[in-house]
Amino acid sequence: MDQMWQVATTAWEPAAIVGNGNKFMIGNGYLGYRGTLDEFTAEDYVAVNLLGLYDQHGDAWREPVNAPNPFFTQVQVAGQPVGVKTTPVLAHRQWLDLKQAVHHRKTTFDVGGAQLTVASARFASGADDHLLAQRVTLTCDQALTITLTSAIDLNVWDINGPHLTPVTTTATGASLQTGEGDTVQIHTHIAGLSGGRQVTTPTLLGTKWTLSLQPGVPVAFEKMALITTSHDVGQPVFPPDYATALQAHSQAWQRRWARSDVVITGDEAAQQALRYSIYQLLLLAPHHLEMSIPARGLSGQTYKGAVFWDTEMFMLPFFNYTDPQVASKLLHYRIKTLPAARAKAQRYGYDGAFYAWESQEDGRDGVSDYNVTDVFSGRPMRTYFGDKQIHISGDIALALWRSYQQTGDEALLTDGAAVIVESAKFYYSYSYWKPDKKRFELLDVLGPDEYHERVNNNAYTNKLAQETAKLALTAMARLATVDPQAYAAVCAQTDYPQWQARIEAFAAQLKVPTPAAKTHLIAQFDDYFGLEDVLVPAVRERLLKPNEYWGGAYGVAADTQVIKQADVVFMLQLFAQDYTIETLAANWRYYEPRTEHGSSLSASVYALLATQIGASDWAYPYFMKSATVDLTGETKQFAGGVYIGGTHPAANAGAWQAVVQGFCGLTDDHGKPQVHARLPQEWTQVSFCLQQRGQWYRALVTQKTATLTPIADPAQEEDHGHA
Amino acid sequence: MDQMWQVATTAWEPAAIVGNGNKFMIGNGYLGYRGTLDEFTAEDYVAVNLLGLYDQHGDAWREPVNAPNPFFTQVQVAGQPVGVKTTPVLAHRQWLDLKQAVHHRKTTFDVGGAQLTVASARFASGADDHLLAQRVTLTCDQALTITLTSAIDLNVWDINGPHLTPVTTTATGASLQTGEGDTVQIHTHIAGLSGGRQVTTPTLLGTKWTLSLQPGVPVAFEKMALITTSHDVGQPVFPPDYATALQAHSQAWQRRWARSDVVITGDEAAQQALRYSIYQLLLLAPHHLEMSIPARGLSGQTYKGAVFWDTEMFMLPFFNYTDPQVASKLLHYRIKTLPAARAKAQRYGYDGAFYAWESQEDGRDGVSDYNVTDVFSGRPMRTYFGDKQIHISGDIALALWRSYQQTGDEALLTDGAAVIVESAKFYYSYSYWKPDKKRFELLDVLGPDEYHERVNNNAYTNKLAQETAKLALTAMARLATVDPQAYAAVCAQTDYPQWQARIEAFAAQLKVPTPAAKTHLIAQFDDYFGLEDVLVPAVRERLLKPNEYWGGAYGVAADTQVIKQADVVFMLQLFAQDYTIETLAANWRYYEPRTEHGSSLSASVYALLATQIGASDWAYPYFMKSATVDLTGETKQFAGGVYIGGTHPAANAGAWQAVVQGFCGLTDDHGKPQVHARLPQEWTQVSFCLQQRGQWYRALVTQKTATLTPIADPAQEEDHGHA
Repeated sequence: MDQMWQVATTAWEPAAIVGNGNKFMIGNGYLGYRGTLDEFTAEDYVAVNLLGLYDQHGDAWREPVNAPNPFFTQVQVAGQPVGVKTTPVLAHRQWLDLKQAVHHRKTTFDVGGAQLTVASARFASGADDHLLAQRVTLTCDQALTITLTSAIDLNVWDINGPHLTPVTTTATGASLQTGEGDTVQIHTHIAGLSGGRQVTTPTLLGTKWTLSLQPGVPVAFEKMALITTSHDVGQPVFPPDYATALQAHSQAWQRRWARSDVVITGDEAAQQALRYSIYQLLLLAPHHLEMSIPARGLSGQTYKGAVFWDTEMFMLPFFNYTDPQVASKLLHYRIKTLPAARAKAQRYGYDGAFYAWESQEDGRDGVSDYNVTDVFSGRPMRTYFGDKQIHISGDIALALWRSYQQTGDEALLTDGAAVIVESAKFYYSYSYWKPDKKRFELLDVLGPDEYHERVNNNAYTNKLAQETAKLALTAMARLATVDPQAYAAVCAQTDYPQWQARIEAFAAQLKVPTPAAKTHLIAQFDDYFGLEDVLVPAVRERLLKPNEYWGGAYGVAADTQVIKQADVVFMLQLFAQDYTIETLAANWRYYEPRTEHGSSLSASVYALLATQIGASDWAYPYFMKSATVDLTGETKQFAGGVYIGGTHPAANAGAWQAVVQGFCGLTDDHGKPQVHARLPQEWTQVSFCLQQRGQWYRALVTQKTATLTPIADPAQEEDHGHA
Repeated sequence: MDQMWQVATTAWEPAAIVGNGNKFMIGNGYLGYRGTLDEFTAEDYVAVNLLGLYDQHGDAWREPVNAPNPFFTQVQVAGQPVGVKTTPVLAHRQWLDLKQAVHHRKTTFDVGGAQLTVASARFASGADDHLLAQRVTLTCDQALTITLTSAIDLNVWDINGPHLTPVTTTATGASLQTGEGDTVQIHTHIAGLSGGRQVTTPTLLGTKWTLSLQPGVPVAFEKMALITTSHDVGQPVFPPDYATALQAHSQAWQRRWARSDVVITGDEAAQQALRYSIYQLLLLAPHHLEMSIPARGLSGQTYKGAVFWDTEMFMLPFFNYTDPQVASKLLHYRIKTLPAARAKAQRYGYDGAFYAWESQEDGRDGVSDYNVTDVFSGRPMRTYFGDKQIHISGDIALALWRSYQQTGDEALLTDGAAVIVESAKFYYSYSYWKPDKKRFELLDVLGPDEYHERVNNNAYTNKLAQETAKLALTAMARLATVDPQAYAAVCAQTDYPQWQARIEAFAAQLKVPTPAAKTHLIAQFDDYFGLEDVLVPAVRERLLKPNEYWGGAYGVAADTQVIKQADVVFMLQLFAQDYTIETLAANWRYYEPRTEHGSSLSASVYALLATQIGASDWAYPYFMKSATVDLTGETKQFAGGVYIGGTHPAANAGAWQAVVQGFCGLTDDHGKPQVHARLPQEWTQVSFCLQQRGQWYRALVTQKTATLTPIADPAQEEDHGHA
């Protein structure tokens, strides 16, 4: 198989269990199945993570529910379990087939001198959200009697569980209930083996066989599982067999890859990393409901399984260009959760819509006021992600408008205008007027750089807030023209006529980031340049404990100019057209050595802005950092004592952005795409497909040329190819 | 001697050295001499603390200079030093004669079977600022040969020293220089012994005698010291002898006591504690220059020897009523330092006058941005005393105006109006306008309760700020009437005509503390009632280390309703006339169990407001706590790792206020004093003198009656008595 379509490991070590569980994920937007081995259990972070189904256990953080694992597989020889943790391993390989989206493992064990090989494949069907399928093959080089157990393992990994209580169980299925009253059903079907006996323990539901393996004669079984929840409608059914299921799954993935693959010529490392990044985005795309993608995807319960700005500011461009139906679902999730955002604003004493920082299924905020633990005192630390990181509403408003501009989907305007207006109202009501300076200010906020808390006039936040106000005016003016009835409805819903003048004043008189005349530098917030001017390595040396929090009131970064992630640079990347190239470049150069990149969101932003200032060589390492975050990246597993591991879809999407919007210069010129060649030196060519306003294009970018050719939907071409 | 005029201890233990050094202080406003024993050295916290002379050593905090100790006295027998730390003690007594302001000690040592008694007296002359006098008497019950050394000890106790480098030294004196270039001169003169030989080591300058003591025959010497600095004018001279010096000193103190003593009948403990409190205030009163009283008096270098709001909000009433010349000096210190307050405002980007939180001689702010050490990480913690505790300017403005009202001293108006106007300008420029609420707000401040940092609309601060604005308008209106020339000058100095309308708007539209309709409660700041509602003991139990800081971002009190000290209650005590008795009482009752009294300033405020709501029984324990703070109080010696020990003149003054303004109800009715009987149950009578607008009165308050009788200046009566 083409190396460029594969991610593999041939080593196995206990320390890699968590990392491999993320790296070798499969999923279909409905659920994610972690890249664990067949014999693994809850302690190995096995999880079948469900999108959008949350539960709270006791006083702990509310988090998504992990379904039981239908594919627990245990081989025993002479009563001893065979597995990588207990048995000498002669050969081992674990890999993802990215093209087909199938997880594989093949391990040869030394079982008392006999070489027993366990091979398995599994996938989360791209054709049926509820379907998981597994195929296991056992081979031995000599005659060997084994027992084989295939079971649903009810003992699931939870950060803050347990969430599921069995209501009814059989040897092939179970119905379970969450603490909040939702239900999860799991049904399994096995083919290929007969004569087993039922296994039903409190945690295992399955079948056990005693098998006499003959030298060189494989023994195999296939298992399929259907997982449904009380959120679903309809009843899925088992396909006739594994091969049929695999075919439907493969075809679905072929269509997806046809639309979204990016082919890089001249850089295999970049090609593989980018393709893997796209794979991650494809496995997360929700096709079945108006829900968005959690910050750690479907890799587990980290960050409460919540949706952050990651979707709007990083993932949305990929979907807008390659799968607008998914993009529409992501955006309508925010439209749908407007009532929760209004309620949050009201709770804090503001008008308008203050979106959740950690948004769960209905827009409720999963954020805690105490998100970090002080590693010195062991006490929870008051953090301000929920109540001060107000840029979230502007992120959503901007994403809505830019998606509307790009796609021309009028539903985004009619349904989304209220979101933009309510967000603008929120900023107005959050702001203060400074009489002697004759301006509005946004005080006491947390910008993208979370290491500096409770700052005034954060550049990113203020620019977003101003843009939100402008967009509210623009959107409503347009809505009045194109859909007077919808305009009237939004006016009634938002009280816009009473607010219009205030929003105009706010847009005109908010303090916004302005570059200094000589240096072109923009202060990240008021008095930022008065902080200690020191670079990242010096601040790192001040750490007393490796996992202490850099931010907070007293963290090592707090009183310095060292920042967590792109902030001014992000603002400039988003609004490059409002600033001179000197300003873009000067700020990139200033902030770059002062950025710790403590967030996986940071690297791709630096990559993107670097391409915009004509410095693709500066951009390249940041692109690669973003693209490899889940392959080889050393990401933080803990922040101030809190587990934050998992996959990084925003970084995956940022890598795509860096290539497509960065190196290939894809921009939206009033609804028409444009590309510009600014490839890294070693790359000879990049090609990819994209659609805009219903028209598909193939982009071909070389060192010197950039062309867009209108084409038919490449997914339909694929279908024809297979027909 | 009358017990009521004495403070004494007969026990000696090493752990009491620091506490006794504070408790047995003597002083005369120019200098303070700690209550240490004659044989003590720098390690025992011996200090001769100079008012208003500061020095910075290296990068450490700038602090007041301690002069050399002129009275180091060492007795040796057979080469072994005799002293409480090294020699068996048969009897020991250390006491203050409060009436005469003389420190005494008398100790009988067992010196190899012989009983050797060392007795000494010393005072800081109330008649000559520069003069210190000591008398030492040695007696033995059997013949004994001893050596006696009396020397200037140049090795002084410093927190952040050394500050003094000897320039010239002789056996009787030295001239020394600070790092900042100031000089300190010390001259000594000994009488009563002859035949000694000079001692001049690098740190000791004096005389050593070998003496043959005869049984029961005392041997004595007298020593006088003159201390001057380069800040002084004129050259003091030695008085002829100790007795003459003592007489002048005693007469001065007789005059002071005649004016300021308060006689309580029926409660000896209260009488003694209050008299001791008054003693402390008298020994601190600056007679020689426009300087104010540091927060820890002249007991050392704690809190950088800086002047806080303690003077204006606690000490000033005592001096206004008993020694208006001193009060005038205290106030003119603030008037003199207006330029520094304007410079501070400008440094932080504001208009007007932002007074120093820790004011040193010229009004410069000694405050550090890192005033507390995190006991868990050992790191300095960012604190906000300097940049956010903005009530200081209003404290000064209010004190100026109320002193002016009380004394009728027009100089306070002509010289002080600019202070009030500049303070009002400062508040205006610090404030923001909240358009949808149509009000000004004061955001991101630190109120008197320092445990809650960076709060919005602190009740105390906002009320003070509004009052300051009102007073600016009132003061300028009055000045225009009574002194048009001065008015014109202040207008020119402050640009008042340009500011008047803004100050009017600010006074009319600032958010000010308003009691809730049903509960009458006032929130200490925005969202205060949303904090965890828990009482002091529960919060104390959360401490992981005894000396950790309760405040800061993550201190045990930070996210609770537990506060450091009177805040809303202080505001109500100052502005009781603006609120109903129900409001005063409800808030006293609400905040009292939530107040930790982590500041010695807190107790007297609770006492005062309790008397105002007719609850003298609630007031009494708070009065006693305030009055005994330096006698028996368990005050914090460390806050977050920083030494904060010393005397507590604001608490001493608060005790006086609690009796005179609280239990005796002294108020100012448009320039006329009034008293009201509200004594604690056990007290039968209180009598004291006071002056207002040049007229002296004797107040006599019983359980049921309260009378004021005009009298001649009681100090002059005293003089006549002695003539």
